[in-house]
Amino acid sequence: MSQKPSNPKGTRDFNPLTLKRRRYIIDTIRSVFTSFGFNEIETPSLEKRSTLYQKYGNEGDKFLFNIINSGEKIKKANIKSFENQNYNDFVSSISEKGLRFDLTVPLARYVSQHQNEITFPFKRFQIQNVWRADRPQKGRYQEFTQCDADVIGSKSVLLEFEMLQMFSSVFKRLKLDDVSIRINHRSVLNIIAKQIGINNNFGEFLVILDKIDKIGIDKAKEEIKSKFNNLNDIDKIFGMISQKMSPKKYLNNLKNNFTLEADDILLNELESLSNLIDNDDSLIDIEFDLSLARGLEYYTGLIYEVSSKSNFDIGSLGGGGRYENLTEAFNLKDNSGIGISFGLDRIYHVIEDLGLFPKNIALNNDILVINFGKEYLIKISSLINDLRSNGRNVFVYPDKNKLSKQFTYSDKNNFSYALIYGSSEKDRSSIKLRDLKTGKENEFGFEKLIEHFKK
Amino acid sequence: MSQKPSNPKGTRDFNPLTLKRRRYIIDTIRSVFTSFGFNEIETPSLEKRSTLYQKYGNEGDKFLFNIINSGEKIKKANIKSFENQNYNDFVSSISEKGLRFDLTVPLARYVSQHQNEITFPFKRFQIQNVWRADRPQKGRYQEFTQCDADVIGSKSVLLEFEMLQMFSSVFKRLKLDDVSIRINHRSVLNIIAKQIGINNNFGEFLVILDKIDKIGIDKAKEEIKSKFNNLNDIDKIFGMISQKMSPKKYLNNLKNNFTLEADDILLNELESLSNLIDNDDSLIDIEFDLSLARGLEYYTGLIYEVSSKSNFDIGSLGGGGRYENLTEAFNLKDNSGIGISFGLDRIYHVIEDLGLFPKNIALNNDILVINFGKEYLIKISSLINDLRSNGRNVFVYPDKNKLSKQFTYSDKNNFSYALIYGSSEKDRSSIKLRDLKTGKENEFGFEKLIEHFKK
Repeated sequence: MSQKPSNPKGTRDFNPLTLKRRRYIIDTIRSVFTSFGFNEIETPSLEKRSTLYQKYGNEGDKFLFNIINSGEKIKKANIKSFENQNYNDFVSSISEKGLRFDLTVPLARYVSQHQNEITFPFKRFQIQNVWRADRPQKGRYQEFTQCDADVIGSKSVLLEFEMLQMFSSVFKRLKLDDVSIRINHRSVLNIIAKQIGINNNFGEFLVILDKIDKIGIDKAKEEIKSKFNNLNDIDKIFGMISQKMSPKKYLNNLKNNFTLEADDILLNELESLSNLIDNDDSLIDIEFDLSLARGLEYYTGLIYEVSSKSNFDIGSLGGGGRYENLTEAFNLKDNSGIGISFGLDRIYHVIEDLGLFPKNIALNNDILVINFGKEYLIKISSLINDLRSNGRNVFVYPDKNKLSKQFTYSDKNNFSYALIYGSSEKDRSSIKLRDLKTGKENEFGFEKLIEHFKK
Repeated sequence: MSQKPSNPKGTRDFNPLTLKRRRYIIDTIRSVFTSFGFNEIETPSLEKRSTLYQKYGNEGDKFLFNIINSGEKIKKANIKSFENQNYNDFVSSISEKGLRFDLTVPLARYVSQHQNEITFPFKRFQIQNVWRADRPQKGRYQEFTQCDADVIGSKSVLLEFEMLQMFSSVFKRLKLDDVSIRINHRSVLNIIAKQIGINNNFGEFLVILDKIDKIGIDKAKEEIKSKFNNLNDIDKIFGMISQKMSPKKYLNNLKNNFTLEADDILLNELESLSNLIDNDDSLIDIEFDLSLARGLEYYTGLIYEVSSKSNFDIGSLGGGGRYENLTEAFNLKDNSGIGISFGLDRIYHVIEDLGLFPKNIALNNDILVINFGKEYLIKISSLINDLRSNGRNVFVYPDKNKLSKQFTYSDKNNFSYALIYGSSEKDRSSIKLRDLKTGKENEFGFEKLIEHFKK
């Protein structure tokens, strides 16, 4: 049975300090979501494969962790499919459930399933793990935490704006002023595609745009030229695409530089958004970016992406957008949604790199009770109970080891105080408190110790 | 793509109110663990199958959710094993990872893997989900939350006592005085087994004892008689077993009623524990119970089980015990451990049945801003920002719907206040706050609103 133990590649153990820092970020995000009136839900890690399957096309299914049916059901393995190298059917024959790969598909399932218990618009947030059978690499994990807020059941552009406010509020509270939000609109990308002459394969066009951050705009242009025929205006359009711009300039481009006309609904929406942005001086940097695509297929309206300026390569720290048809797959129609997601792990890395974790988030252990033997400990056990009821964290050293060993332990674990009750303290009916940061000692009557901490 | 959506059997969605109530229990448990000096860690949901496999014998492996290897690895499926009905080998050929079924095996893996970063004794707690491919039934789920505290690296009986204190503290803080702890010791069970004449198959003996809660003591006795030969003293011993007793009586039984002698280490341990228990009047009901077995195989010392008196049938609300050899499977020897686990879901059910959730844990939404149109909202957007920075939760109704519809929404979602800024308020340069519980309205200048809430 003996083995060299390790966690699976692409997963992580979180020690107490790392966990505290993660919680600091999570609590910040949760408090912002809550302050905008979102309520939290949780859904199971496991979903039916029929829920997860084909939600992001074939590419998405590759990332799905499939769970083998248990018990007798394994006997139904479709060996013929395996032999015909039809691995999808083979997997389907032995797997009915998978691990969710995001929180959006489960939300769509939740909203459809519980539509009669929900009053719309439904503002929910969800902070849970997701799993992707992706090749593990630096900053990319197979199990990671997403923090999502979505509103289902309203098309109001106020929500597009609210998402910008929430991004801003989270990163400001985290003191990450190194961050900017890029914005684009799927309908505008549609117009661009048609203007260039791409009428089919819009998805492929998006996939190429999506790579601009990695390959650069010129290579993206070449790739489009090589994949599509009969293109127009591509140099002009790509000249425009390569600039980041203000909402006003984005709007003007849309009105003046395309032969294809944007419809009034789209123009009104962008106009309203532009006004709301201009009116709010609490927002972080916002840039409109005609090249932003967001790979995932379900977006239909405005799309967002948040990046770190100092650490752009780590990828997006957050993103989101509006989607129209997500709940349709679950039989619930006409239910527009908009949502954003924070990537906890990347935010953690950026805060760590910039040294921005608050100093008070540390592995501070509180009081260590030195063990002089059970006969002493039993005398102070109700005192220890009182300390705990009064909110102190008290670690009774379990073994009667040499004092030097016990104090080495308190050093290594960064305790604030040692509580000392041995034979001389017993003789004096008192208890000694050593401040381990300063070395100062105080001796008290039992009843004074709690008072001391209350001060 | 259209389908009737549902979550998988044995899993659950948690709506906002249920989640708040779960958090109330979790936060209580976390605060108790912390007050005893435990630090929190998290480990991945996924573990290598080699970590999980055979940790609780064949029975345990049946509960394992195995994950199908992704990508090309599926091609390595061992079809020959399948055809020979050797399903274990078949599964092994397509699965390298599984979902953890408890938090104890991952702890053993963690401690062994990170032994050089840890100073022992290591007090850790962990509150995470676990998964079991068990047949779903009332109160039994395939995905559920465990709350575990363990100490690794000390044999001190003070820890056996501390676990009793923690059980007591959690259930007292939850106002669940309906609860009692049963205690037994694996070494004592060993002595009993030998006294009766069971020298082999100790495990089978434990499995039968474990069923006493379900089948009753008489049937258990019959089952032992039918499975084992050459038994002695069984009526006398089962007479003793059928009573719950104080620690003192348990000790006396051990000293006086067995021909086989308990060793001094065991007697000293139980004597110390008995003294510690007698000395502490903050403990909840504790009964020693010679029939308590705890099915899981790794326990070697004291074992605990916590049950609800009013709802005994729901099963144990918590349990635990001491184990000697758990980290040995991972190459770390001589590392005694002791731990307890709280079953969040069952505790939830008992609190719910008894109506003991505090009234202030409710779905209280805070302030709803009535939408009279963007032109009005934009005027109060910095006021809304201020409210949020001051800790209020503000939900801006996103659409300019009829007032009746907006107020119906606030009713259904239990908002405390409505904030009203329409044309007449605009004319008066003021804003109106309606207390939705009392119906009372107040009208303020902008700058007075924040002050009002600060009072």
